[in-house]
Amino acid sequence: MTAQAPTRPLGPDAGLDQVFELAQQLRVDSVRASTSAGSGHPTSSLSAADLMAVLMTRHLRYDWDEPGNPANDHLVFSKGHASPLLYAMFRAAGVVGEDELLTTYRRFGARLEGHPTPVLPWVDVATGSLGQGIAYAVGIALAGRDLEASPCRVWVLCGDSEMAEGSVWEAFDKAGRHRLANFIAIVDVNRLGQCGPTELGWDTEAYARRVEAFGCRAITVDGHDLEAVDRALTVAADGQGPTAVLARTVKGRGVSEVADQEGWHGKPLPADLADRAVAGLGGVRHLSVRGPRPPDGAPVPRPAAGPVELPRYELGEAVATRSAFGKALAAVGARPEVVVLDAEVGNSTHTQDFEKAYPERYFQTYIAEQQMIAAAVGMAARGHRPYAATFAAFLTRAHDFIRMAAVSRTTMALCGSHCGVEIGADGPSQMGLEDLAMMRAVHGSTVLYPGDATSATALTAAMADLPGISYLRTTRGAYPVLYAPDEVFPVGGSKTPRRGDQDTVTLVGAGVTLHECLAAADLLAADGIHARVVDLYSVKPVDAGTLARAARETGALVVAEDHHPEGGIGEAVQSALMARRLAPALAHLAVTGLPGSGTTAELLDDAGISRTHIAEAARALIQK
Amino acid sequence: MTAQAPTRPLGPDAGLDQVFELAQQLRVDSVRASTSAGSGHPTSSLSAADLMAVLMTRHLRYDWDEPGNPANDHLVFSKGHASPLLYAMFRAAGVVGEDELLTTYRRFGARLEGHPTPVLPWVDVATGSLGQGIAYAVGIALAGRDLEASPCRVWVLCGDSEMAEGSVWEAFDKAGRHRLANFIAIVDVNRLGQCGPTELGWDTEAYARRVEAFGCRAITVDGHDLEAVDRALTVAADGQGPTAVLARTVKGRGVSEVADQEGWHGKPLPADLADRAVAGLGGVRHLSVRGPRPPDGAPVPRPAAGPVELPRYELGEAVATRSAFGKALAAVGARPEVVVLDAEVGNSTHTQDFEKAYPERYFQTYIAEQQMIAAAVGMAARGHRPYAATFAAFLTRAHDFIRMAAVSRTTMALCGSHCGVEIGADGPSQMGLEDLAMMRAVHGSTVLYPGDATSATALTAAMADLPGISYLRTTRGAYPVLYAPDEVFPVGGSKTPRRGDQDTVTLVGAGVTLHECLAAADLLAADGIHARVVDLYSVKPVDAGTLARAARETGALVVAEDHHPEGGIGEAVQSALMARRLAPALAHLAVTGLPGSGTTAELLDDAGISRTHIAEAARALIQK
Repeated sequence: MTAQAPTRPLGPDAGLDQVFELAQQLRVDSVRASTSAGSGHPTSSLSAADLMAVLMTRHLRYDWDEPGNPANDHLVFSKGHASPLLYAMFRAAGVVGEDELLTTYRRFGARLEGHPTPVLPWVDVATGSLGQGIAYAVGIALAGRDLEASPCRVWVLCGDSEMAEGSVWEAFDKAGRHRLANFIAIVDVNRLGQCGPTELGWDTEAYARRVEAFGCRAITVDGHDLEAVDRALTVAADGQGPTAVLARTVKGRGVSEVADQEGWHGKPLPADLADRAVAGLGGVRHLSVRGPRPPDGAPVPRPAAGPVELPRYELGEAVATRSAFGKALAAVGARPEVVVLDAEVGNSTHTQDFEKAYPERYFQTYIAEQQMIAAAVGMAARGHRPYAATFAAFLTRAHDFIRMAAVSRTTMALCGSHCGVEIGADGPSQMGLEDLAMMRAVHGSTVLYPGDATSATALTAAMADLPGISYLRTTRGAYPVLYAPDEVFPVGGSKTPRRGDQDTVTLVGAGVTLHECLAAADLLAADGIHARVVDLYSVKPVDAGTLARAARETGALVVAEDHHPEGGIGEAVQSALMARRLAPALAHLAVTGLPGSGTTAELLDDAGISRTHIAEAARALIQK
Repeated sequence: MTAQAPTRPLGPDAGLDQVFELAQQLRVDSVRASTSAGSGHPTSSLSAADLMAVLMTRHLRYDWDEPGNPANDHLVFSKGHASPLLYAMFRAAGVVGEDELLTTYRRFGARLEGHPTPVLPWVDVATGSLGQGIAYAVGIALAGRDLEASPCRVWVLCGDSEMAEGSVWEAFDKAGRHRLANFIAIVDVNRLGQCGPTELGWDTEAYARRVEAFGCRAITVDGHDLEAVDRALTVAADGQGPTAVLARTVKGRGVSEVADQEGWHGKPLPADLADRAVAGLGGVRHLSVRGPRPPDGAPVPRPAAGPVELPRYELGEAVATRSAFGKALAAVGARPEVVVLDAEVGNSTHTQDFEKAYPERYFQTYIAEQQMIAAAVGMAARGHRPYAATFAAFLTRAHDFIRMAAVSRTTMALCGSHCGVEIGADGPSQMGLEDLAMMRAVHGSTVLYPGDATSATALTAAMADLPGISYLRTTRGAYPVLYAPDEVFPVGGSKTPRRGDQDTVTLVGAGVTLHECLAAADLLAADGIHARVVDLYSVKPVDAGTLARAARETGALVVAEDHHPEGGIGEAVQSALMARRLAPALAHLAVTGLPGSGTTAELLDDAGISRTHIAEAARALIQK
């Protein structure tokens, strides 16, 4: 059943008969790979095989020998579960062998994972959480066009089920708004989702109306008519505007026993059925493809970095950390790889300081936090260093994107402002009280929470060199500068702004509670109690050594945090101590109730995390 | 400047001149309330005052004396920051006094919070995170129409900035799909967001195209032309289909010094400007309003509850907890208040078992997790008991909605399936590894993680009586039933399936790691080491007593969890022990790396949470 390898790879001049053969090969390989693995999504691959065969032969400008070529087009599988098809394409491109495809797909330790990730050099972003790939594609397209003047285009293959995700419409909205002519979505409208028919079935005109209403061009096409698909992709790539190709397809196309049938989502074909399918598809082929090459020409070089001159603050000066973040960000902008993204709160988070200095590297995504994070991930995939900021509370809107960014091995800096009850009158909807738990649990993350302008400045700058996803938590109100401008704040460190040989208790705070701890130490001092104060500006990694020393030397710790008790500073401290088998007397003060409105002082006190509560807790520990 | 109180309240027959006076009163009160509070969003209130004056006088069918009347219309302020306007309406309705409005708004302990919450009897859901109110409204409308045959309508006031949120389009999509004729969105298109002009400015036609593309009717109107607004709302409420009234308005309307000016978002008017504004608006008024009453007639009574007959499982039988969840859910469906929501993975989470038994109480939101949670919140607001389920990983998509549901004091049950590396070949995009951290940090939540079918059954049933937001974590694979059918599983409890007087170590697991702990105990027993095993099926609240006893009696604990190390079971255990000043030798095994594909056994082992790793960790602790 094995055909002879052809003498030369299919190129852009290949006839559609040859493209058809390629499509059949992609189908055969999708079936074989998933059946051999015993899991996967062959039917979702079969529907899009014709689309991808035309794309890779005639339209995708890609140097398979040099995946890092910045002029390469991008191909994002937003429907990441169609990984058998993607990997079959890689086999056709000659970068993955037949053996690897058939014996390692979905196996332990293999790079051909169940859903694509950037462990593969031809994959820019991890997908598998639906509605995300298209949003990353917008970020890649923005970076390519607006930051690099690159000729690259971004092709993204979407499923029809994922059109129900709001994030998809945030993406089309931004593609339309920015007139991203280098952005082409191909929607595989195969009518069937995981559980049965999709909302809109084969109504490609309904999709077209939505796409057009969001400012993009829509082309409807029979996704199995190769000539029509070729024409559609030609128009889509004509540089005249962002486009969605809405392709009516048949799930399971080419395998009559499963085509257009319910109940076959995410199921490999049993071996006997797979054999019949492969035979029916004309057997195994060994076609290889070399489609269009990317345009020649050196990329526009990035301007040289200027000196980063960080602002300096006077001790005692009242400055909000969010303000210090904004000013530091503007300074860090001297590094040309730095880009900043806002979700229309830049005058609150203070990213507007960066916008004023570097408007060409500032991206307004409006109130669309998912797209803000996705655009950051896309820009990072092209080598930029994004900072994205909104209220800490509203970063939860993008939790799934942040989680997936870690799977994409993305390096980016996030900032959440307006944390905790400290914000006061606006009330609980605006209070970040879960963000530390969320961000600590992100794979490979760094979590920073400065208490003053000097540390906020240093940590904002440090984030530009941290790998992975780093998070800075900032505070709404202005508090005194505690540290001199030349103080250093290593990630994983802490400060001990107050200590003495006679300390009998340690007060651990960060952000606003650091100031409350310092005030509590004053209250305790008036009672003759010597309290140490630790500034835990690095929440992850946490300075276990300093905490352990404090536990040993003072025997009692009060940890106060403007956050819910779970997953935040208290638990970080407790696990650090427990890892060293230390069980000092410990009081963990956190926001356990549901706050309302009020002044900062009222709300801190009501939540039990104010100076008086900290001092009381310390006294109670010492008396025990 | 204070006018006389009129002799009788404005009713539906009030002339538009009187409605105009009411609108001016709402403006004056919005200005006065926010200026007195020193914070708030007067300009965002001024733009919508005419819309709301027409609505409450002539269209909103609401019995202000009986907010619990199930025939009442609903009014949701999706633009929750316009709370001054909402509270001014409450004053006009006579349910909030002038004194309360002017002296308590945004103050500590007051019910007139910065953003509306259901501490007020006329508020159904908390808003303030944009793009959410409209999504809750869809759930309320669905419940009113499809579960209760209630004549109630749902009016939702949206801002134009929030139209950038994808969740808004999930909501319009569902309103359109379900032809929710009782759903009317009023969009206050005032052109200005927080930072400047919105994406679409005053292009109400562009909004109309989007709304219509998503299957709803669109009516564009001058939002300050009372007669036109009245006509628009009349058409919108004609019962012919879901409608959006797209009202072109002026931010700050009525106060010439701020009208249509940038830089006035979220800023109260200074006292002198407020005085001029009030004078310019014609001074303080004391109009009261009694608009249309809700239709008379008793609500359709809920059918009587049938007996809940839970499935029973044989000891040792291999059953997935997700399967047990589905079957238990179908049984719990005998309680007619239970409704179930799916995001098109019901054949994976097993909510399809409920669908088969009670299709009329099963809601398919397709792949739109935000809308799934929002619909659940909306249904809960009308007294139903929703269960909503998807993959644990994809619940992160709705984190902001879950967070806000707690502010809404919502009671609902969530289920996250496919947790952890246990799922195997699908890879990290599908693995819930952050869900425990997310759900533990939700205010007032309960977090449950059964290890077998019997406990999954009992806990699924228990959730129907738990207050607040409860979460059940289920596992993909089938594992042996450990408990007899009559075993009880109190929330906050634990089980100790293996214990003895000579135990020198305790192995703490839940879900799949419970089975690994049991197997590890066998391995250790072969070495003559007696290990206790604790099944921590209740992660929050956690059984601190049993853990403390285990720590005291065995001196060493291994905690193994299929989750990232932060915010999950390990930290719950550590904080429980630390609160009792216990520092046993403790090993915390969790998923620290970034997993790929593989078999369950391979991935558990690679993550260091398999039986062999647990046994090794136990041996190492004992040797210390």
